[in-house]
Amino acid sequence: MPDLPPGGVLLRVLYLSLDPSVLGGIYERKSNATRVEIGQVVGGENVSEVVASDHPDYAVGDIVVSCTGWRTHVASDGTELRKLDAPFASVSSTLGVLGTPGFAAYAGITLIGRPKPGETVVVADASSPIGSLAGQLAKMAGARSVGIGGGVERCRYIQGELGFDESIDYLMPGLASTLARLCPDGIDMYFENIGAGPIWLAVLPLLNRFARVPVCGLEPQLGGAGAAQAPSRLVETLREVRNKSLTLRGFMNDEFIDSHYPQFLRTVSAGIAEGRIRYREDITDGLENAPKALIEMLEGRTFGSVLVRVAA
Amino acid sequence: MPDLPPGGVLLRVLYLSLDPSVLGGIYERKSNATRVEIGQVVGGENVSEVVASDHPDYAVGDIVVSCTGWRTHVASDGTELRKLDAPFASVSSTLGVLGTPGFAAYAGITLIGRPKPGETVVVADASSPIGSLAGQLAKMAGARSVGIGGGVERCRYIQGELGFDESIDYLMPGLASTLARLCPDGIDMYFENIGAGPIWLAVLPLLNRFARVPVCGLEPQLGGAGAAQAPSRLVETLREVRNKSLTLRGFMNDEFIDSHYPQFLRTVSAGIAEGRIRYREDITDGLENAPKALIEMLEGRTFGSVLVRVAA
Repeated sequence: MPDLPPGGVLLRVLYLSLDPSVLGGIYERKSNATRVEIGQVVGGENVSEVVASDHPDYAVGDIVVSCTGWRTHVASDGTELRKLDAPFASVSSTLGVLGTPGFAAYAGITLIGRPKPGETVVVADASSPIGSLAGQLAKMAGARSVGIGGGVERCRYIQGELGFDESIDYLMPGLASTLARLCPDGIDMYFENIGAGPIWLAVLPLLNRFARVPVCGLEPQLGGAGAAQAPSRLVETLREVRNKSLTLRGFMNDEFIDSHYPQFLRTVSAGIAEGRIRYREDITDGLENAPKALIEMLEGRTFGSVLVRVAA
Repeated sequence: MPDLPPGGVLLRVLYLSLDPSVLGGIYERKSNATRVEIGQVVGGENVSEVVASDHPDYAVGDIVVSCTGWRTHVASDGTELRKLDAPFASVSSTLGVLGTPGFAAYAGITLIGRPKPGETVVVADASSPIGSLAGQLAKMAGARSVGIGGGVERCRYIQGELGFDESIDYLMPGLASTLARLCPDGIDMYFENIGAGPIWLAVLPLLNRFARVPVCGLEPQLGGAGAAQAPSRLVETLREVRNKSLTLRGFMNDEFIDSHYPQFLRTVSAGIAEGRIRYREDITDGLENAPKALIEMLEGRTFGSVLVRVAA
């Protein structure tokens, strides 16, 4: 149990968000993630309560978001904390629909792709925290949204619960022809958040002229339609970019978050309050169960934001 | 010899522009180009003089640009002609630096890539009509321009005559390391006009965060560092797009030409008049020599805009 540092704060972690990107630090060599060595703390985003403070900006009881990893308590100098003072759907939602994954969806749809009414927006991994909000924001903009997911249950969730216009199970044969049938007017925007793979190759020929492809800056959802199985079609891709005047635009949240965070919170909070935005959380109790929850997530057995409730 | 059509014009072709894209119509199956059958006219852009007119908008002596192909005379109903009334460097320049290739360079640099002073801009096929203007426009915007060309003579032209800061001969071994050495601050913009290939793979790891890659809508310069030899690296490409917040933006001239043509003419004409923009034309006399000139172009033996002077 750490002590309260002079001039700092002591945090009690309430929730830990599990994210496939931690694997980058554990075993991927070419990742952006910082390498995690044996004995170091595994990274992750938390929402915490201030339980002691010697810092003028934080009082006991404040709720803060930080990237302090798999811990129960954190001694912080008060930097790299984000205090929550906006009205939130729930404390846990600050790690999901109203947090990092939610903002990625918002940036990709609202700031980069900007779907127009009547356009067709395809979202890969549409049952994921990012994908589910992306499709719902596209709907709110008046577009048709077509979600791709793995398995009957996820597709039912995408279309039935999230309200996408169509859903496609990429585990079924005939992905390309099904997608073509469900997008009779082509695709005006493709929210790319899984890495090049069979879905990319199915989407590419259907993209309309001037289609936008935001390429999301979070790590791919491993265990999904991942990059590893991808046939490599760079020549075709660049030819389509050229022939169809496509825009591929990579992004990470830090580019937009300072300028657009308040608007994001307002839009998505209002959408949740009005019942136009739905989300799901997959909550495991106890930090000791985090490894098991991570494995379940990597095996594709979780649903929505994967959180560990570290303290009640 | 065609007759003057009622209400139309009769044109005498002065110049024909040769363009690798005509091959698309001749033997490529998957091209955007309209298929050319035996006995049909091979396509191409022309500049012509009106020699007879029954059309209120055109008078004898007017100079017009049209896409009427490999002919000496054209009977036209007056549509799809563009009359030249701006001051031009020369009649032939309307098919090159002040025409379609020039506008493609202008759109890619000035409208899409928008290099800032001090940034590094890399241009592939920098001795081509498009590439040579692209690099010179980047210089005029205050950027460092690095041109890639095939062979010593082209590199001397790129750096010596066109005034690029650096040139690289992609036929020499060590392309990737040479490029890295000549771009010590990375690459902020890459003007892509050749299709995926070894150059793409050399450029990709050097791209800085927020780098822009306009992907030019004209056909690749065949015989150069073409797509056919390309290792296919789609997964790496999309990963870099994501990790570095890159923008890949395909375009064709028609998107911008109506809104930006006058500004383009003013900018480039002024650049030519001031000696800040240089260009080269490779002119062959006589329509009967067009096939030979086309072959020379495809073999990479021509330099600059490849034109056939059909009439003096």
